[in-house]
Amino acid sequence: MSKKEVITDTELKEYYDGMKNSYLGPLWYDLGHMVTKEPVHDVEPYLWKWKTIRDYVMKAGEILEPGKDAERRVVYLQNPNLLKHGLVGYGTHTLYAGIQLLLPGEFAPSHHHSQGAIRFIIEGSGAYTAVNGEKVYMERGDMILTPAWTWHEHKHEGTEPMIWLDGLDVGLVKNLAASFFEPYENGFYPEQPLENYSTEKFAKGAFVPKGKKEKPGYPSPIIGYKWERAKYVLEQMSKSPKENEDPYDGYAIEYINPTTGGSADERIGSMMQRLLPNQHTKAHRHVHSAIYHVLEGKGYTVINGQKFEWERGDFFILPPWSWHEHVNEGSEDAYLFSFNDKPVMDILGLEYEEAHPEGHQKIEKVFTPGP
Amino acid sequence: MSKKEVITDTELKEYYDGMKNSYLGPLWYDLGHMVTKEPVHDVEPYLWKWKTIRDYVMKAGEILEPGKDAERRVVYLQNPNLLKHGLVGYGTHTLYAGIQLLLPGEFAPSHHHSQGAIRFIIEGSGAYTAVNGEKVYMERGDMILTPAWTWHEHKHEGTEPMIWLDGLDVGLVKNLAASFFEPYENGFYPEQPLENYSTEKFAKGAFVPKGKKEKPGYPSPIIGYKWERAKYVLEQMSKSPKENEDPYDGYAIEYINPTTGGSADERIGSMMQRLLPNQHTKAHRHVHSAIYHVLEGKGYTVINGQKFEWERGDFFILPPWSWHEHVNEGSEDAYLFSFNDKPVMDILGLEYEEAHPEGHQKIEKVFTPGP
Amino acid sequence: MSKKEVITDTELKEYYDGMKNSYLGPLWYDLGHMVTKEPVHDVEPYLWKWKTIRDYVMKAGEILEPGKDAERRVVYLQNPNLLKHGLVGYGTHTLYAGIQLLLPGEFAPSHHHSQGAIRFIIEGSGAYTAVNGEKVYMERGDMILTPAWTWHEHKHEGTEPMIWLDGLDVGLVKNLAASFFEPYENGFYPEQPLENYSTEKFAKGAFVPKGKKEKPGYPSPIIGYKWERAKYVLEQMSKSPKENEDPYDGYAIEYINPTTGGSADERIGSMMQRLLPNQHTKAHRHVHSAIYHVLEGKGYTVINGQKFEWERGDFFILPPWSWHEHVNEGSEDAYLFSFNDKPVMDILGLEYEEAHPEGHQKIEKVFTPGP
Amino acid sequence: MSKKEVITDTELKEYYDGMKNSYLGPLWYDLGHMVTKEPVHDVEPYLWKWKTIRDYVMKAGEILEPGKDAERRVVYLQNPNLLKHGLVGYGTHTLYAGIQLLLPGEFAPSHHHSQGAIRFIIEGSGAYTAVNGEKVYMERGDMILTPAWTWHEHKHEGTEPMIWLDGLDVGLVKNLAASFFEPYENGFYPEQPLENYSTEKFAKGAFVPKGKKEKPGYPSPIIGYKWERAKYVLEQMSKSPKENEDPYDGYAIEYINPTTGGSADERIGSMMQRLLPNQHTKAHRHVHSAIYHVLEGKGYTVINGQKFEWERGDFFILPPWSWHEHVNEGSEDAYLFSFNDKPVMDILGLEYEEAHPEGHQKIEKVFTPGP
Repeated sequence: MSKKEVITDTELKEYYDGMKNSYLGPLWYDLGHMVTKEPVHDVEPYLWKWKTIRDYVMKAGEILEPGKDAERRVVYLQNPNLLKHGLVGYGTHTLYAGIQLLLPGEFAPSHHHSQGAIRFIIEGSGAYTAVNGEKVYMERGDMILTPAWTWHEHKHEGTEPMIWLDGLDVGLVKNLAASFFEPYENGFYPEQPLENYSTEKFAKGAFVPKGKKEKPGYPSPIIGYKWERAKYVLEQMSKSPKENEDPYDGYAIEYINPTTGGSADERIGSMMQRLLPNQHTKAHRHVHSAIYHVLEGKGYTVINGQKFEWERGDFFILPPWSWHEHVNEGSEDAYLFSFNDKPVMDILGLEYEEAHPEGHQKIEKVFTPGP
Repeated sequence: MSKKEVITDTELKEYYDGMKNSYLGPLWYDLGHMVTKEPVHDVEPYLWKWKTIRDYVMKAGEILEPGKDAERRVVYLQNPNLLKHGLVGYGTHTLYAGIQLLLPGEFAPSHHHSQGAIRFIIEGSGAYTAVNGEKVYMERGDMILTPAWTWHEHKHEGTEPMIWLDGLDVGLVKNLAASFFEPYENGFYPEQPLENYSTEKFAKGAFVPKGKKEKPGYPSPIIGYKWERAKYVLEQMSKSPKENEDPYDGYAIEYINPTTGGSADERIGSMMQRLLPNQHTKAHRHVHSAIYHVLEGKGYTVINGQKFEWERGDFFILPPWSWHEHVNEGSEDAYLFSFNDKPVMDILGLEYEEAHPEGHQKIEKVFTPGP
Repeated sequence: MSKKEVITDTELKEYYDGMKNSYLGPLWYDLGHMVTKEPVHDVEPYLWKWKTIRDYVMKAGEILEPGKDAERRVVYLQNPNLLKHGLVGYGTHTLYAGIQLLLPGEFAPSHHHSQGAIRFIIEGSGAYTAVNGEKVYMERGDMILTPAWTWHEHKHEGTEPMIWLDGLDVGLVKNLAASFFEPYENGFYPEQPLENYSTEKFAKGAFVPKGKKEKPGYPSPIIGYKWERAKYVLEQMSKSPKENEDPYDGYAIEYINPTTGGSADERIGSMMQRLLPNQHTKAHRHVHSAIYHVLEGKGYTVINGQKFEWERGDFFILPPWSWHEHVNEGSEDAYLFSFNDKPVMDILGLEYEEAHPEGHQKIEKVFTPGP
Repeated sequence: MSKKEVITDTELKEYYDGMKNSYLGPLWYDLGHMVTKEPVHDVEPYLWKWKTIRDYVMKAGEILEPGKDAERRVVYLQNPNLLKHGLVGYGTHTLYAGIQLLLPGEFAPSHHHSQGAIRFIIEGSGAYTAVNGEKVYMERGDMILTPAWTWHEHKHEGTEPMIWLDGLDVGLVKNLAASFFEPYENGFYPEQPLENYSTEKFAKGAFVPKGKKEKPGYPSPIIGYKWERAKYVLEQMSKSPKENEDPYDGYAIEYINPTTGGSADERIGSMMQRLLPNQHTKAHRHVHSAIYHVLEGKGYTVINGQKFEWERGDFFILPPWSWHEHVNEGSEDAYLFSFNDKPVMDILGLEYEEAHPEGHQKIEKVFTPGP
């Protein structure tokens, strides 16, 4: 190879300045920031106490009227560090979590959007979500899908406040410049006569009308996933611990689309974990991020060496590529619901998982909420 | 084109004889028999009265001891015309139907075979089928899968005779020279502790243990299909007749594998039809053949112009490519269960269906059983 | 279990006679014939010398005029033992092989049928097959697909006789009562302007017109498979013997549908084997059957202990579930083309393969053709 | 509904401040920014003249030694507006484009990364890319895949400078916190003896070694896509304009993975367009973004009302959801190569396309490069 030219500092500066002014860049300086050895991100782990969230949500019920002051009465979780980067409404870089309140007699009119959504019911009963007209009644612990671009609305026929989690892939869709939204023109999408139809169709065997076979694919033919049934399966699993215990998640089930065997929602994964009293899982990390909600129990999760203590109702953020392990400190079973962006990582071939080399992390600090 | 040679009759005879002795043949004479314009077959429509079948089955219970005189105490349906062609045990060219009896306290030991099988429960309760160790209890109207090459056994813990239909693709597998069979060496495949597990897993929502995702495919993750649930779905369907009524089959559901949306068994299709009082379906024909069992009701089916009158318990054969239509003559709903070779025709690209040009057939004769 | 009833011989005879007259059968006597431990069949191994076949085919060219005496001038291979069972035109229980002659200036008009077909070119050039109007020119060693229900015709623009193999799944489709056939009403399906289009489309890279993406599936987007290219790949393979040599088939390639990775035709598999001089493969058996054609070389194949000596042009039958091994006795490479029913066995879950326990068979007799 | 509480401004401020300090947010204020009616983004359309790019790249060849000063000698395109948001190395929000120079005798050592990459060859010959050891020689107009996490290296055995485009999904992978990178420990991944193997394998027919069937899926079994062949297909297409002309892209082909029918790379789409002299396509917009390179010809593209004039070698950015139409102003055919993030949008269910209501845009301004 010919010997390289000698170049003066002035010439070099001119070269790089000229490049910059031409909106060109020298990869040899910037590669390390563009293609990193491991995931780099700004997502911060954080935990919100249920009491705090609930107070703000209930207060919103006092001061806001849906349909007048707000289409939906929702308080969302804001990742502190992402806020510093101007990212409003981000729980993680891909996921959004909002806590919605619907009071007796109220409704939220139909709309649809390119964001997918799952609902997880926290308090109350007597309300339903209608998805493309199919009514699904909501009870504590249930998960309900409103897949991307399906018309959905909520109506409350019951007598007590109804509170649920909305989980959407707001950050993902925003990053991909793919957000579309439309309200339904006439308020409500026509409702079908049958209730909980898709939930029942697969119950105790699977049948479809002749000639109307379900094609494997999305959206899932099941809209509502009952807590009672999820709990039953988790209880059955603990009877065969060797076969069913997951080292990192205790006893854990994923909500699936029965026609594909994949996650219930196309882009948003969902999981329920059961931790037995004193169960302490091993630590691992993975590319996907998650937002957790404590359905029942008391314990803590260690994330990157920091201890996050949780109890019933709390929410916390698991950033991407972060070591984490869970501990049930209570005398009862703990149930953690979480939703995540794992299906996106899987489908794009980007998921990767690693066990902690020592099994467990050292706890270096204890988290307390607040700025 | 050059003029063709003149050839004497003697030379011609020599030519064809020589060809025959060389095991060669002239396609120009035989094409019409090999590649026919429409399906040609030897399958005869036939009907068996339940009383006749049941008497012979119950009598077998008196004279045969399972495990000594017979591994399984089964009386099978024999297509009369196929018997003339030496085909023993054929219901249609592809399908076999046997009626099995298991008495209280008895069992049928584990075996497996390359034939697929479905069971449809006709009488009794308290017995179970175990499929690869998973126990599924059997009740009237239920369908149970024992997919090809799965270990299966039957045990009767109840107090009354248990009778069910065995549906296998004996003819298909024999024609394809693909029959394999093995008894389980030590009598019984190890049983799992959970009962009806796969049936329940999909009930009211779909969950799988984390990291053990069902891959779409066969065998179906559901083994047992409950009559109670099939009936519920059929009843729901008749609330929206315009949407759900099938011109040829009344209200009809197919038993599916939820992970593929295809038929429950990979090669054997299964269907339950509900005919309302006085319902008279239109006539059509299709490549696939079927064997019917009358779960409930009273009526008749016209097959290629011949009337087959049926009532509770009867069985009848629908040959391939045969016009057929169903009539419920009773004052109650009629329920017809059938199994078929449609999945084979579908997967091989050979299924084809045709509506009768006049909607209905003329009845030219009435069937009576017997030789 | 309660003691079984004592029954007289007369009563027993009455029982079985009555059952028979009711077209019912005792499974306890017949199970062993219906569900056999291993495949049972009537397919006989056989070999035809090319000279014999060619003489009869060429003679047909002298005495028959296509379009007048015969739509297609074809001599087919007849399995001797299947003929005894009345099965005319069967090479194996599923496969048919015919040798077709087209003279210069002749044509065979368009038709289609539910049978799939492959063509393998033995002699001549200058003719083409048009498949749904796409013209594919035929040269020695090429394979051409005319998938089930595609319109196809042959035209000869060249100057010498053109001879090729037609391989169809006649037996399979007949057994399944699924034969449909139609001539094209006006003689010829309209031809497209581009020649060999689908063959070229995938050449040296894969491109499709925007918005007209090939969906994975059948029929294959490739119609013509060139011998020149098959040979090139086989020659490349022998450079890495450890990686590429197959113990049972030497160097072997399968013709595939690039959109599925599965066999080129949906139901008919096709394979080209290259045996190096003195190469002697190991023995195995499998459920699927095959018909072989010797493209080049001299050697023998041992089938169930019988030696079948072959040379260029010969054809032979490999029955299902038969031990077989191949030997190249010549000083040049041998090339064996074969087509089979493996895709059917695969797709129905019925394929099974077994290595010979001693690696090779003992030769017990040598085959000579004739009755 | 009960009348809402009266709340003082002080209380309201306290409420919102408290929420903010608790890292909670009021969806009723922020929803419009999170779930927008249409895609919102910061990607700016831009065009770089080839002369400018080439000068900086060639200069890098004089001042940088690969392996010492730089692992790869690459100048990348920097989207001006994304730079303002601190996003270095972004062509669009998802895509990166770099122009790489390899001088005779040089090499770039093996590495792999979770980003996918395509190469498009601009100048020179005699160099090859090895992908997991398979050598693919590079010629002007060829596209070569180095799918995510495959080991790849470049070596130059020729005599003139070699310049090519590197297209990676840097932004996508960074946004998803999924970047992994590893150098190969010992410099070079072992090379396979066969050259251009996968490119040839599918040429003029498709064959795979027996028992090594390609499973449909990623990465594509084809690595190299030849310009000569792409051009041939585009020329064939213009013979049937009605069938093959695309209203928005002239004559356009997509580079595919033959086993799936989908895009050649799993996440990066690639397309070649041919515009006949004077051809003026219609305007449309779609969610996916793209980076264009002018292989041959002279013309312009109108993006959101702004005219971008291009000639051989130029690059330009098409942001997401931007109106665009192309015009060939030269007397020769124009060929535009582009790569895009369409597969990501498709697979995530986020792609959407819209025709311009008036067919064409009004040109409101003309682009000139520079800050």
